[in-house]
Amino acid sequence: MIRIAVDCFGGDRSPQANIDGSLSALEKNKDLFVILTGDEAIIKENLSGKSYDSSRLEIVHAPAIITPDEKPTDAIRLKRDSSMMAAVNLLRKDDTVSGMVSTGSTGALVTAAVLRIGRLRNVIRPSFCPILPTMAGGIVGVCDSGANVDITPEQLQQYAVFGSIYLKTVYNIENPRVAMLNIGTEAGKGDELRKQAYSLLGNTPGVNFVGNMESRDLLTGNYDLVVCDGFSGNVLVKTTEGTAIELLKKLKKEIYSKTIYKVGAGLMKGLFTNLKEFMNYQNYGGSVLLGTSKVVVKGHGSSNATAVEKCIEQALGMERNAFAEKTESLLDRIAENKETTNG
Amino acid sequence: MIRIAVDCFGGDRSPQANIDGSLSALEKNKDLFVILTGDEAIIKENLSGKSYDSSRLEIVHAPAIITPDEKPTDAIRLKRDSSMMAAVNLLRKDDTVSGMVSTGSTGALVTAAVLRIGRLRNVIRPSFCPILPTMAGGIVGVCDSGANVDITPEQLQQYAVFGSIYLKTVYNIENPRVAMLNIGTEAGKGDELRKQAYSLLGNTPGVNFVGNMESRDLLTGNYDLVVCDGFSGNVLVKTTEGTAIELLKKLKKEIYSKTIYKVGAGLMKGLFTNLKEFMNYQNYGGSVLLGTSKVVVKGHGSSNATAVEKCIEQALGMERNAFAEKTESLLDRIAENKETTNG
Repeated sequence: MIRIAVDCFGGDRSPQANIDGSLSALEKNKDLFVILTGDEAIIKENLSGKSYDSSRLEIVHAPAIITPDEKPTDAIRLKRDSSMMAAVNLLRKDDTVSGMVSTGSTGALVTAAVLRIGRLRNVIRPSFCPILPTMAGGIVGVCDSGANVDITPEQLQQYAVFGSIYLKTVYNIENPRVAMLNIGTEAGKGDELRKQAYSLLGNTPGVNFVGNMESRDLLTGNYDLVVCDGFSGNVLVKTTEGTAIELLKKLKKEIYSKTIYKVGAGLMKGLFTNLKEFMNYQNYGGSVLLGTSKVVVKGHGSSNATAVEKCIEQALGMERNAFAEKTESLLDRIAENKETTNG
Repeated sequence: MIRIAVDCFGGDRSPQANIDGSLSALEKNKDLFVILTGDEAIIKENLSGKSYDSSRLEIVHAPAIITPDEKPTDAIRLKRDSSMMAAVNLLRKDDTVSGMVSTGSTGALVTAAVLRIGRLRNVIRPSFCPILPTMAGGIVGVCDSGANVDITPEQLQQYAVFGSIYLKTVYNIENPRVAMLNIGTEAGKGDELRKQAYSLLGNTPGVNFVGNMESRDLLTGNYDLVVCDGFSGNVLVKTTEGTAIELLKKLKKEIYSKTIYKVGAGLMKGLFTNLKEFMNYQNYGGSVLLGTSKVVVKGHGSSNATAVEKCIEQALGMERNAFAEKTESLLDRIAENKETTNG
């Protein structure tokens, strides 16, 4: 049995979406045990009348809620009785709990994960790896999308390591093509960080480094993982999302400008729905915080039940396929190589 | 008469697009004098049979061409007889020439501009400011989009200064709303660079700083100018472009998947053409290198005649409305304030 804690509060559609997503994941995954954290009375109210295997579900009462506008360090210190901190504490104290899912404050979650849950052996800093759909029909991971803004070449190397293992273990991508986000494709492009990281990435065992990638090529399907500092990664992911949203809005507005367009759009309704679903990041699960000693999945604040279910399945996939062990083993190998080279 | 040099070679559609764009700009702007640089015989061949005011056009023979794959420093040193360097030398040596337009190698152009043309008084480093269309029907400038990757807070401040003056002088935006690209909108977000720049921007005379902007909001129309380091600015601009292109490609592919979609799309043909034109950055001119002592406009490598014409008009607008004088005067004021504060 794989035990996953689900923080039921803090998201825009919580607790309903978080609870329904958990029940749906329970139904589909017979090796899953879910621990719901949050106000017990409210959770029970939301569970009532629904059918689920109660032998694989538990509630941990934690009535407080951390809101997105709270300062992360204050929130985790002052709200120990919050649904998020209850889940974090399960990971910290209970060896039988493998991971957690939250749709709450990103800042509080990262801070709590780093300070309370700890890192895998040799990991410098955990980092986020959201998954985006490519136009070729596949996916691409972006690591890091905002956990760490001031970083070193060695951190980019680690992103390539655990990002590759993540794509292998959860998405069955055999030999992930790893690119570094840069302002040109040639070697030697970019700032000092990129220049130093380039050769490091090319010499990392277990990493299939294919070179630099320009941001305009993110969705082409030519790459499986893109490594970047958290600042430009955040820009990359949010610009993609923002442009798609704004463009679809513009399309909708234009359609309503002429009757003939409305008729045409009526015939294309299925296509537009597909396109919207395709660009809906909720369908691709949450952003996993890679490098923590236990699995932490951050769902989008507006996650619906399907998105929460996907987040739980991401955590399950990592645990089933020994993400942590594989990562520590490869990082050990890299550390040994480095010692041999230096000594 | 405002004299602008046009580098006729180096772009994908050159020299035809560059020459036709120049003739079209000549026709519309009676205060314009154009100096075409490049292989004289080829230019004359392209001019033959066309009607234009020959008293406002001159050719400077320069047979070599700098290609995008050449190392910038080598190119500008070894190809002094190239069309690009001929234009650069006109700016450097001829006081009557106000600016230049090129659709050639970006790297060579930046290097040549910095080393040979020089900067306006007090400018730390010139930087690119491309213009993007917003979904609200207006435009937004992004400064810097890739000229400088390792920068200081003072550089971000200067981008805000000359970017604001540029939007005022060329686009008649009275009091441009300036935002700083960041990973969150709250003050205090981001890396060290952003933290330091935030208060600096808020205290800059002549700059209407409205705070941080998340990349997903670039196209909303809520901002007129976004300042950022060249690395994340490059990611911002190219991701916007890439996502729009990939999404329109996907749309096209889907349309061809079903007959009914094809029928619907047929009715919406005008809309799709408008949308494509709207997202076509060629319609918004080139990326101006702000901060050089004379105007340098970089057109996209694939610029057509319309794009080249727009580039020339950008240069004209800056010269007509005294961009250089206004920028130097405001930077002087900031330097004086700083001395007063420090002393």
